[in-house]
Amino acid sequence: MRAVCVIGLGLIGGSVLRAARAAGRPAWGATASAEDAAAAGAGGYLVESTVDDALARAAAEDAIVVLAVPLPALAGVLGRVAKLAPDCLLTDVVSVKAPVVAEIGRRLPGARYAGGHPMAGAAASGWVAGSAGLFDRASWVVTLQPDTDLATWRVVAELALDCGARVVPTTAEEHDAAVARVSHLPHVLAAVLAATGAEGGPLALALAAGSFGDGTRVAGSRPELVLAMCEGNRDELLAALDDALGRLGVARGALASTGSLGATVRGGSDGRGALVRVKRGPRGRTKVGLAEPAAAERLIELGRRGGWIVGFDGDLALAELPEIPA
Amino acid sequence: MRAVCVIGLGLIGGSVLRAARAAGRPAWGATASAEDAAAAGAGGYLVESTVDDALARAAAEDAIVVLAVPLPALAGVLGRVAKLAPDCLLTDVVSVKAPVVAEIGRRLPGARYAGGHPMAGAAASGWVAGSAGLFDRASWVVTLQPDTDLATWRVVAELALDCGARVVPTTAEEHDAAVARVSHLPHVLAAVLAATGAEGGPLALALAAGSFGDGTRVAGSRPELVLAMCEGNRDELLAALDDALGRLGVARGALASTGSLGATVRGGSDGRGALVRVKRGPRGRTKVGLAEPAAAERLIELGRRGGWIVGFDGDLALAELPEIPA
Repeated sequence: MRAVCVIGLGLIGGSVLRAARAAGRPAWGATASAEDAAAAGAGGYLVESTVDDALARAAAEDAIVVLAVPLPALAGVLGRVAKLAPDCLLTDVVSVKAPVVAEIGRRLPGARYAGGHPMAGAAASGWVAGSAGLFDRASWVVTLQPDTDLATWRVVAELALDCGARVVPTTAEEHDAAVARVSHLPHVLAAVLAATGAEGGPLALALAAGSFGDGTRVAGSRPELVLAMCEGNRDELLAALDDALGRLGVARGALASTGSLGATVRGGSDGRGALVRVKRGPRGRTKVGLAEPAAAERLIELGRRGGWIVGFDGDLALAELPEIPA
Repeated sequence: MRAVCVIGLGLIGGSVLRAARAAGRPAWGATASAEDAAAAGAGGYLVESTVDDALARAAAEDAIVVLAVPLPALAGVLGRVAKLAPDCLLTDVVSVKAPVVAEIGRRLPGARYAGGHPMAGAAASGWVAGSAGLFDRASWVVTLQPDTDLATWRVVAELALDCGARVVPTTAEEHDAAVARVSHLPHVLAAVLAATGAEGGPLALALAAGSFGDGTRVAGSRPELVLAMCEGNRDELLAALDDALGRLGVARGALASTGSLGATVRGGSDGRGALVRVKRGPRGRTKVGLAEPAAAERLIELGRRGGWIVGFDGDLALAELPEIPA
């Protein structure tokens, strides 16, 4: 089993280190946070003193390097990777993919890289908030392009599977558009709802129950993390915001003119129903032969249909996909 | 202890009947739903064959009558109350208060009435979804006006306290404005988010995690219940929608022009912080003497400050209110 070197030991990176070791892999990490380093070390995990030390070891042991630092810190870390571990397989767990791909193109143009994004999180942050089970049954995007080397993609996908996740194959572009709708837009709407509710004063907040509590939960996240994620996906988030603004305006207009919210509420009910079908509905099984022609395109199409990979058998990727697509 | 007659045995009415009996009160109900009637009867609760029978018994036993029917059914039931139990104390657990107050003004102009709204719910509906504990530590609005007879208000408040709730005193108008922001707007935003996410197709839904799941949860409610609630509060909901549309437009404009969502995200974080302070933060104690001049106004002001009543001691209403208002 290939060794794993995790740079950045916050919630996600720290959970990757734990899950990789729990899967039996040699695994170590490094972080610029003295607090995370101390906590990981106290937990019995191998933490190198510096990022350089961790990367040198990765080069020596041919480890896969997992970049788990915030986007603003990525360029600096990539500079060290280019110097110390340029031939290592590389992935990341940063949310938005386009800026990561661009940065890698600038600093490590020949890198054997497949982008990653585990769709899991928690309200708290830092090493202490993580766990080896954070990714159990979570969707974990591993990006590819029609011309991607599937050998690298597979190594990254196997790490995600070892961490307990389901691997969703898709392109960086389609990933960024999708997460704008299901991850970044929810944060903006939660912020708008929280502010609009608070404008009602203490009486309104005292009356708030489940619908307001659920709808504003992620507004309690650390603002700097939300901003890095949302602002890093500006173009796709603008498109999602325009879609939401249009729908909200239609709702407003219908309520004002006809008194009815029927189309809005039924559209929302249909959307929620589609979510439940895709995430928890019945799934059929299929296989994708990685050595076959157009295998990458077939994987991308699988992801587009809501499919995910649950394992490998020789050259075959074993997949599940919704029986009734949304 | 005053007897309780509950008309309508769905989620809320059925839970009131259970909680009232659990508190040791004589309690019975009636419902137009054969299914709910059968389930309540099978559970050992006293269910009269008809609404008329239940109301006649209420008149004979001087019970408090709790109207727990959907808004469209209210006028018909009020006609029966006017005929069979016109002198009974009256409350309701319908969401929006203005149409209920108007209907009572038309059909029972002299009624001893205080409106109610327990801020509790569940995804499922009907008798089977209810429980005696549904209102534990929930906010339960009992409405009053500056000139309200506090004797009636207190009887209704005592029923709410017996059901395990905290009583929030406020006017019908302020209630409707508050729930537009914290109960009806969340349903519209959840519907918009669910539809915008589903527009991203099965890939987007497969990547949805906590933020999308939480933000769309109430979009899974029964559309007809959501519509009755939201459309019944049209004017106040329009004001809340305009506030939300303005804030969302500002977010869109800032992201497009400056690339920053800082004001939006920090405003949402502040709003969520205010919610947590009001609902779970430290509270001081105070008392309101019900026999004192301007007692109703003092109760209304208490509610406006996020306060709620937790009990009575003689003529005193014992209250808690946030130490640090939102």
